[in-house]
Amino acid sequence: MSSNYGIQRDIPDLQKKRALYQPELPPCLQGTDVRVEFGDGTTTADLTGHHVISHSFPCTYGQPLAHFLRPTAKVADAQIITEHPTIRVGFVFSGRQSPGGHNVVWGLYNALRIHNPNSSLFGFIGGTEGLFAQKFLKITEEVLSTYKNQGGYDMLGRTQDQIRTTEQVNAAMASCQTLKLNGLVIVGGVTSNTDAAQLAETFASAKCPTKVVGVPVTLNGDLKNQFVETNVGFDTICKVNSQLISNICTDALSAEKYYYFVRLMGRKASHVALECTLQSHPNMVILGEEVSSAKLTLFDITTQICDAVQERAEHGKSHGVVLIPEGLVETVPELYALLQEIHGLQKNGVPTDNISKQLSPWASALFKFLPPFFRRQLLLLPESDESAQLSQIEMEKLLAQLVETEINKRLKAGIYKGKKFNAICHFFGYQARGSLPSKFDSDYAYVLGHICYHILAAGLNGYMATITNLKNPVNKWKCGAAPITAMMTVKQWSYGPRTNSIGKPAIHPATVDLRGKAYELLRQNAANYLIDDDYRNPGPLQFEGPGSDAKAFTLCVEDQDYMGRIKKLQSYLDKVKTIVKPGCSQDVLVAALSSMSSVIDVLSVMTAPSYSGQSYL
Amino acid sequence: MSSNYGIQRDIPDLQKKRALYQPELPPCLQGTDVRVEFGDGTTTADLTGHHVISHSFPCTYGQPLAHFLRPTAKVADAQIITEHPTIRVGFVFSGRQSPGGHNVVWGLYNALRIHNPNSSLFGFIGGTEGLFAQKFLKITEEVLSTYKNQGGYDMLGRTQDQIRTTEQVNAAMASCQTLKLNGLVIVGGVTSNTDAAQLAETFASAKCPTKVVGVPVTLNGDLKNQFVETNVGFDTICKVNSQLISNICTDALSAEKYYYFVRLMGRKASHVALECTLQSHPNMVILGEEVSSAKLTLFDITTQICDAVQERAEHGKSHGVVLIPEGLVETVPELYALLQEIHGLQKNGVPTDNISKQLSPWASALFKFLPPFFRRQLLLLPESDESAQLSQIEMEKLLAQLVETEINKRLKAGIYKGKKFNAICHFFGYQARGSLPSKFDSDYAYVLGHICYHILAAGLNGYMATITNLKNPVNKWKCGAAPITAMMTVKQWSYGPRTNSIGKPAIHPATVDLRGKAYELLRQNAANYLIDDDYRNPGPLQFEGPGSDAKAFTLCVEDQDYMGRIKKLQSYLDKVKTIVKPGCSQDVLVAALSSMSSVIDVLSVMTAPSYSGQSYL
Repeated sequence: MSSNYGIQRDIPDLQKKRALYQPELPPCLQGTDVRVEFGDGTTTADLTGHHVISHSFPCTYGQPLAHFLRPTAKVADAQIITEHPTIRVGFVFSGRQSPGGHNVVWGLYNALRIHNPNSSLFGFIGGTEGLFAQKFLKITEEVLSTYKNQGGYDMLGRTQDQIRTTEQVNAAMASCQTLKLNGLVIVGGVTSNTDAAQLAETFASAKCPTKVVGVPVTLNGDLKNQFVETNVGFDTICKVNSQLISNICTDALSAEKYYYFVRLMGRKASHVALECTLQSHPNMVILGEEVSSAKLTLFDITTQICDAVQERAEHGKSHGVVLIPEGLVETVPELYALLQEIHGLQKNGVPTDNISKQLSPWASALFKFLPPFFRRQLLLLPESDESAQLSQIEMEKLLAQLVETEINKRLKAGIYKGKKFNAICHFFGYQARGSLPSKFDSDYAYVLGHICYHILAAGLNGYMATITNLKNPVNKWKCGAAPITAMMTVKQWSYGPRTNSIGKPAIHPATVDLRGKAYELLRQNAANYLIDDDYRNPGPLQFEGPGSDAKAFTLCVEDQDYMGRIKKLQSYLDKVKTIVKPGCSQDVLVAALSSMSSVIDVLSVMTAPSYSGQSYL
Repeated sequence: MSSNYGIQRDIPDLQKKRALYQPELPPCLQGTDVRVEFGDGTTTADLTGHHVISHSFPCTYGQPLAHFLRPTAKVADAQIITEHPTIRVGFVFSGRQSPGGHNVVWGLYNALRIHNPNSSLFGFIGGTEGLFAQKFLKITEEVLSTYKNQGGYDMLGRTQDQIRTTEQVNAAMASCQTLKLNGLVIVGGVTSNTDAAQLAETFASAKCPTKVVGVPVTLNGDLKNQFVETNVGFDTICKVNSQLISNICTDALSAEKYYYFVRLMGRKASHVALECTLQSHPNMVILGEEVSSAKLTLFDITTQICDAVQERAEHGKSHGVVLIPEGLVETVPELYALLQEIHGLQKNGVPTDNISKQLSPWASALFKFLPPFFRRQLLLLPESDESAQLSQIEMEKLLAQLVETEINKRLKAGIYKGKKFNAICHFFGYQARGSLPSKFDSDYAYVLGHICYHILAAGLNGYMATITNLKNPVNKWKCGAAPITAMMTVKQWSYGPRTNSIGKPAIHPATVDLRGKAYELLRQNAANYLIDDDYRNPGPLQFEGPGSDAKAFTLCVEDQDYMGRIKKLQSYLDKVKTIVKPGCSQDVLVAALSSMSSVIDVLSVMTAPSYSGQSYL
């Protein structure tokens, strides 16, 4: 591990100027006092998993939501926190680096200093490895100075992405005890926040006084639920990738001889691919969620692309841009089944060279059909979350090859009459992850950092910092905290040999909602994108002038104000109580009972385990 | 070919704002009158080729330099052009699309309109193919409106990159005659400008009245000589690539587990790789020019990288970033020789499948040693300029594999003691080519467009539009024109079976000057870059605020004012004449003769064919 963590760096003009940018705080977090309002105790969206989760998290399940309000807010039950004792907080970067991660630290540091200059913040060096090994750096203004509004996790680095084994959990606890930490903040995505919840539970039951807080930081944008609208890093990643995709579109249209197949980083879900499509209008995108839902095979997808190429050729076009999410390989049924067999054999210790011989006849036939480079990539060991090494599997190359073969066939058969098909493949991911964070991500992360402090000041454990109403300006943002357990679901079944994963509560990556407005927007325009070359170039990430305040389409088109609605429901219930007070007329009471009984009926049906409204299309 | 060329597009905020940006003109081009001063007749830097060139270009060789001055400039012999008859001008995009190409058209269009509103501009559709087929679009303010300051060549598209065969040249001439063109402007790189010179010569000897003008537009930055300081597109490409390389550096430093091997587009020369290195400070760059000059083999380069990996491991570092120019493959002696054999066999009609069997024993052994993906890429047919298909040959993957094998060997032998070596490969090119042009490229291209008009107004043929003093603000830029033949050289020898290329005058791509200041800057810092992770992030291309006025390091560090020096020399000679007028003292005359004789001696030695000061290192 390198020894120059946290050192000051010599940086060019733009970076310097960005380092001087001071994100704004929403009104509720300005000043030194903050009012906390607790809502009702939480449940989970997945009611069928409710019992499993509450059983696994006896100390931390069912805790109430928390809303942070300005001290002058007129809310009866809210509690003002005026005492700010000296506290000691640690934080750890866990999971893929996402632009904005540094600002969480900065926000947290500033909040600590504002409320008590004697409080201290420690960063674990090299991520979880530092947490286990008690290697840390005390964060100071000097350490922070060159990392404000900067990308990467290089202030401290990151290593493994999990805190899960008994050994790891005990090492983390020992670290917190040795350092006498009042709080531990975990910066990461779905896996890291699931680990944060587990750690919180373990600490609580072991009477370890350290409170654990999670922060939703992941470029994948898949930590999305009732409480979390988007993740730190997603905005930047989509902007940088959209810039490049748009450049590729312009390039395709200028030379008119290439089809570009671009695979996008983003893990299992296709959020990045969807957002980039809405930003750049490439000709086609194959979302993993569509493939899953329609159970499209490799042959179906190839045919779909070939039909598009052929239709474009009929319009005189021999160029195009096709986007593919990196998770696609796991959504194609036959490839998924093949991967399951391979991973099963690997788990049983079968050496790589022997795997192809031990596959079932069906899987073996598919394996042989695939080109050598792709076979090698399928044989890579799976990642810690048991998924395939998505970043290393060049699905875009496989599709390009299959499409080329099929188009050549159609050409011979006289069905395709266009020019020679030429494909160029790209994988966009690593080149975006280290970007300077956008203004939105800089602000979002900084405010989340502040919220982490308030969660700890309120003595909460096992919570995630949340901000809603994000599509509006910062002064309209609503700050809160939600128990991480309320975001969990339980997988009810599992394929293949991974039977041990059944029933373990976790935050699962949210997939693209095929009934959501963002997807609807895509469907409405897909035909235009396909034929008309309606390319759109949002340009490079700007920090001043036009474009600098742009936000993600997928954030802005959805009407997501869950927290606001929860509050509105509460006010309806209160109003019913106020109207139907003892002494009201019999008629009013009968009407209320009848109406409420009908409400209960509807909700009971909708929340019964057999109700399939969520998954049926 | 698609039918929607030149259509207006719906574009997002930043693009709209950019479309409204109006580049400034240097003082000499402001107003409606321009003064032209003609310098001495030109020669070539390569005196040995002088005769061949003058013989090949009897009509257009040796024409004088032209300088455009403001009408008030006090220069005795300058000619003011006040008559601006209606003219008809055509233009064609030729060669790889480069950011800024559209602005050349815009500048030319505006200059035409300012000087005579009845003049007209025609753009050939689909590049050279449109030129040959007489397919064109009349350029209007409406056509231009959504392409101002925008990337790509998609206003009109481009196809083949050459105008060379008799058939092509005749078709071009027929087009110019049918359209009654007074001028034809060719926008492109070294190949296209060589073709422009040939066309000018052919037109002149055939008494075709169309004057041909070239514009140096190429992202490769390799059209560099006494008259041309840099090319339109180079600045943008380097900025976009540097942004991505810097992101990759931040990523490497955050995760500390990958070595990134990044190949950069830029053809034979390594200008893009050098500039990006100075911008981003990656750990290593392998310049093709270094490899050529030191005759490094594949083994040498692998060893060099492995030694670096090992040294970094000794400093506890298991990550890094290595840049490679796409031209590298042709500079490694054994790969070059192998490519020559392959291309020779291809020229003789040997089918691809049989080539490996017909290679010489030595080449065959090397071919077998190379991994299958790389063999396939070497077998691709060469491009029109007889070079290999550089963009398709994944040299970065080959090096990554060779380094991995060697590091694993050293690990077993106990020499390398670091962590497991993991490489990730990238090719950056297509994703930068279509970018919105930087402010510099927008300005440079726009002003060059204006100069094209003045070249035609002055009745010049076979000239290239030039601007010098580019590192200074626009109001200090010096505008001129130089005969394209003065930029030509003649290759004195050639390897292998391509003997037909001997002796043909052409503009050859300028390579990185290993004695230049930019390279010196790299060498001074190479040791720091290698070990210290002195990464620098210039950030995404900005259009407002800090960074937006940045210019390329390679442009700014060189002291290039060739045109200024030519003028200064003229003034010295004039001064000698003034001092040593008939009637001066015998002493003064003797001193003058003695001094001048010594000057002549020195210059004669330096310009003799055997003098090797240019190529000796």
